[in-house]
Amino acid sequence: MTTIRAGIIGGAGYTGGEMIRLLLRHPNADIRFIHSKSNAGKALHEVHEDLFGETDRVFDSAWSGEVDVLFLCVGHGEAKKFMDERGKEFDGVLVIDLSQDFRLKREGNCFVYGLPELNRDAIREARAVANPGCFATAVQLGLLPLAKAGLLGEVYSTGITGSTGAGQALSPTAHFSWRAGNIQAYKTLTHQHLKEIGQTLSQLQGKAPGIHFVPWRGDFTRGIFVSSQLRCDRSPDEVLALFETYYAGHPFTRVSRKPISLKQVVNTNKCLIQLEQTGSQLVVHSALDNLLKGASGQAVQNMNLLFGLEETAGLQLKPSSF
Amino acid sequence: MTTIRAGIIGGAGYTGGEMIRLLLRHPNADIRFIHSKSNAGKALHEVHEDLFGETDRVFDSAWSGEVDVLFLCVGHGEAKKFMDERGKEFDGVLVIDLSQDFRLKREGNCFVYGLPELNRDAIREARAVANPGCFATAVQLGLLPLAKAGLLGEVYSTGITGSTGAGQALSPTAHFSWRAGNIQAYKTLTHQHLKEIGQTLSQLQGKAPGIHFVPWRGDFTRGIFVSSQLRCDRSPDEVLALFETYYAGHPFTRVSRKPISLKQVVNTNKCLIQLEQTGSQLVVHSALDNLLKGASGQAVQNMNLLFGLEETAGLQLKPSSF
Amino acid sequence: MTTIRAGIIGGAGYTGGEMIRLLLRHPNADIRFIHSKSNAGKALHEVHEDLFGETDRVFDSAWSGEVDVLFLCVGHGEAKKFMDERGKEFDGVLVIDLSQDFRLKREGNCFVYGLPELNRDAIREARAVANPGCFATAVQLGLLPLAKAGLLGEVYSTGITGSTGAGQALSPTAHFSWRAGNIQAYKTLTHQHLKEIGQTLSQLQGKAPGIHFVPWRGDFTRGIFVSSQLRCDRSPDEVLALFETYYAGHPFTRVSRKPISLKQVVNTNKCLIQLEQTGSQLVVHSALDNLLKGASGQAVQNMNLLFGLEETAGLQLKPSSF
Amino acid sequence: MTTIRAGIIGGAGYTGGEMIRLLLRHPNADIRFIHSKSNAGKALHEVHEDLFGETDRVFDSAWSGEVDVLFLCVGHGEAKKFMDERGKEFDGVLVIDLSQDFRLKREGNCFVYGLPELNRDAIREARAVANPGCFATAVQLGLLPLAKAGLLGEVYSTGITGSTGAGQALSPTAHFSWRAGNIQAYKTLTHQHLKEIGQTLSQLQGKAPGIHFVPWRGDFTRGIFVSSQLRCDRSPDEVLALFETYYAGHPFTRVSRKPISLKQVVNTNKCLIQLEQTGSQLVVHSALDNLLKGASGQAVQNMNLLFGLEETAGLQLKPSSF
Repeated sequence: MTTIRAGIIGGAGYTGGEMIRLLLRHPNADIRFIHSKSNAGKALHEVHEDLFGETDRVFDSAWSGEVDVLFLCVGHGEAKKFMDERGKEFDGVLVIDLSQDFRLKREGNCFVYGLPELNRDAIREARAVANPGCFATAVQLGLLPLAKAGLLGEVYSTGITGSTGAGQALSPTAHFSWRAGNIQAYKTLTHQHLKEIGQTLSQLQGKAPGIHFVPWRGDFTRGIFVSSQLRCDRSPDEVLALFETYYAGHPFTRVSRKPISLKQVVNTNKCLIQLEQTGSQLVVHSALDNLLKGASGQAVQNMNLLFGLEETAGLQLKPSSF
Repeated sequence: MTTIRAGIIGGAGYTGGEMIRLLLRHPNADIRFIHSKSNAGKALHEVHEDLFGETDRVFDSAWSGEVDVLFLCVGHGEAKKFMDERGKEFDGVLVIDLSQDFRLKREGNCFVYGLPELNRDAIREARAVANPGCFATAVQLGLLPLAKAGLLGEVYSTGITGSTGAGQALSPTAHFSWRAGNIQAYKTLTHQHLKEIGQTLSQLQGKAPGIHFVPWRGDFTRGIFVSSQLRCDRSPDEVLALFETYYAGHPFTRVSRKPISLKQVVNTNKCLIQLEQTGSQLVVHSALDNLLKGASGQAVQNMNLLFGLEETAGLQLKPSSF
Repeated sequence: MTTIRAGIIGGAGYTGGEMIRLLLRHPNADIRFIHSKSNAGKALHEVHEDLFGETDRVFDSAWSGEVDVLFLCVGHGEAKKFMDERGKEFDGVLVIDLSQDFRLKREGNCFVYGLPELNRDAIREARAVANPGCFATAVQLGLLPLAKAGLLGEVYSTGITGSTGAGQALSPTAHFSWRAGNIQAYKTLTHQHLKEIGQTLSQLQGKAPGIHFVPWRGDFTRGIFVSSQLRCDRSPDEVLALFETYYAGHPFTRVSRKPISLKQVVNTNKCLIQLEQTGSQLVVHSALDNLLKGASGQAVQNMNLLFGLEETAGLQLKPSSF
Repeated sequence: MTTIRAGIIGGAGYTGGEMIRLLLRHPNADIRFIHSKSNAGKALHEVHEDLFGETDRVFDSAWSGEVDVLFLCVGHGEAKKFMDERGKEFDGVLVIDLSQDFRLKREGNCFVYGLPELNRDAIREARAVANPGCFATAVQLGLLPLAKAGLLGEVYSTGITGSTGAGQALSPTAHFSWRAGNIQAYKTLTHQHLKEIGQTLSQLQGKAPGIHFVPWRGDFTRGIFVSSQLRCDRSPDEVLALFETYYAGHPFTRVSRKPISLKQVVNTNKCLIQLEQTGSQLVVHSALDNLLKGASGQAVQNMNLLFGLEETAGLQLKPSSF
């Protein structure tokens, strides 16, 4: 059985924690180091309390280049800085970056955009993968088949995300007293994920559609739900066929003919899609777990592709379901 | 001081309960009967448990026409049936109906649509008021100034509602195990409130805009939050001025220049509006408490107008705020 | 009508916010200043967002002694410091302190312990009132009639409190991602309120019973629920009679013969009590809103007593109930 | 690799759903039938929505005796009825019953009480296992080492359970509008699990201690947290040593020296224990997931023991953790 030696940089944050939870149980992964600047020497379970009883490992202060894959779970801006300064210590190591630093194409950026439903073949051959954003994954998976068919004009999307989407920082909107029972819009029409969404859709469709996106803060911890509205003159059957054909070989993205809800996907790597149409108005709902298919789960999926493993290895998780 | 003798038909449901809570503390109201078919003789606090310690009253099995105002808090379809069969017993009594039965104009319907921000003068002169729907109120208050200025073309709205929006029925989506931490779309593009919204907007604007509305079930008990997206070529200052002018004399609807959140309005009769614009894309957020400004609070506001009281009488409620 | 000129020191915290919400609507109160060191000049609604649309007042940087009552809503330790340093500027002003600084009797402490169900007459004559703690109020109201009858031996209590009980500070256990769906014990057997509870019970009973108290952090924002277990050889009828007699003239504390639940009291000044007995084991449940009967509501109740108003003035609040 | 042919009777309830989720991913299990009277022919994912995209299996209308293990996930009373009427069709099949029907010892009851931390050796040899109740597991795991040392006198426990503890039935206390943000005691001092707890403790200690238990309904979906108070004259170090020795070889029950919280165990098969002592008062906190260690997870643990598998097989689940 293949064993992949893995290293994690930035193991104390939410995505770092999920990487640890997933790789600890992945049949082919062997975690060689879990680096955290601020927590070196502390037990993992002092930071990720649910790991008490699972492992007595501590955070490492150092790393080694003797790994096969490196996961970067650091903040936006810091991933690029890390690669610039220390990247050469990981010569020959495959890199999966969970920040937004390498998602946009530009001169000298050799990272492949790691959305398997878009770029699976390219990911298999990549040396470095830029893991997509959580909202970006949910919005794109709702639109890829339409973009490929050239059907996107103006798209009006609203999405809602749980508190883990905002990270561990103790901001006022993360306070339980504020967030419980509350809803608020933020980054209206200006969310940073719009860039990677636009890049993907214009790549597929030739020209960029107009994506108008309103994200909301939601009253839950895990998950993203997006409803995208657009005009579409194809019949419901034709649209459904586009989606089913597009996602036929993709194990984690599934089209439901029944109403979907967020908790169907919480604590799994799945993305569910539902289509509803009234006349020429089409609505696409998509739901995923922001920390899994929207972050660390997709990173493991990309690792599986990079190393020729079954795409679902280590990702057949028991849903929490309630 | 004016005393208004009030009767309630259907006092056991959510909107009936809020009517009781409000009228018990209203300085000008004297509740003469609280009718409930299925609970006659039971203490109010056996059904509305928070009323324990507030009142020992019981539900009445009978009503009397000797009231000044009658609140109909019965189900859709039942209000019309009640008026057809028993309406003549309330000759000369002002009627406020919280169902959807009399909201749409048609031959022989003498009810005034009870949205004070639209019809305040007509409500003051009315004999009967059809209280608007909860989502309908939230969507309309976000669009009235634009409709009045003739600026509405295609509008894409997403709204989220708490569990009290669906009433007391024990449906699967009302189960705590299902709803906690969950989100789901329902009645996509087909919500019944679209009709009253369309009626209002075409009345103001001459021709009906396209309103495309996706309602979501949310993970909280009280409140509605709506984000409406549309093209708009006016400048942000012009749009803000339209809203501030429109709502200048309306005590409960306020335009905020800062981000609004749902809990600012929970347990109050307020509706808050926020405007955000990027280029020619405008987003209007609106938030209200579905049981107050979206139902029973607005019914009291209408009662105040009908009887020439201060519009805010009995409605200056302490927000729960957390 | 009596008008009471009131001042608030520390208006930016949770209890300060509730004081403002209550006094703004109190028929006899006229708020003369709302002091906040760190927020002077800011609109109240920038800190207490639900006050948007209620008032445009700003936090004051200064205070004046020309008030009839002063509410101290500052942290533990700071109230004593304030009185030591600035108390003389409030000569002749009645003081209500919401901190724990003056709750315990000792040489030179002229504050009356402000639990109306224990000390109503003394409060009416007081110059200064030490408002009880939130858990202390809930535990004591469940035990006062038993202590008065000399029936308390060893008492085993467990209580649960909402997130507002811990204040606005952004601690890790206040993070929504941590607290949602979570339960944790804290300050087991050592909670600071045990001292004031012990003081009261030994005052009533002659000798101190053993109070063993385990507080829990709960997954909600407002409220406290306590279950106290003890041996009791009186019959259920006798125990019920003790409670009903004790609380007969007290408008906010009520004994329920049916199961009580936390939300019956949220956003009200009530405390509900329920008794359950099996053989010689007695359990007393008590529930209140930690920010109202457990803090600012009780402070207003004390103000009403100090000034000879109806005890319930300004406290007949609409329950949020959901 | 061993393959265990498993059958499930009552696959549509909460514990049935968890059995399916666990066995679908268990490396040694092969589910041969999932019986449901009321859902036969329906896809599993129509009832357990999170299984959409995991399996297209349907509920079976029939069963076969050609299995190695049979899980009874039916209601209390129905398990005994099933065994009486149909048990002979499962001759030679090991039975694991999740109801309370066979937990108490009595003439002719051959079921072993399936708490591995108490009866591991007996379970390994059993033909039939009575899986413990959820609260019973949490309370017992907090007391076993003390009972074994003969240290239990009077014990005062309070526990809180999530909504899944009450099953799928749409009762008023299961309604989201009621339960969100709410707490309520129920079955005070009379919970049905007291019998099996008493049986275990008197078995270990010779004579039965007094267990006084107050269960609460909590505002979350999964999990149980219990705090048990008792007098104890041993030192904290001695008590800790008792617990650590007792649980040394048990993979799922762990003693934490730091504060524990409910979400450390949600979606896992673990039970965490924490000890706190002040003088001669000892408090034991215990936490587990009511559907896993409190039901279906423990059933799988028992299956592993019955078939000589690694005790943790199929139970190394990714915690949901948020």
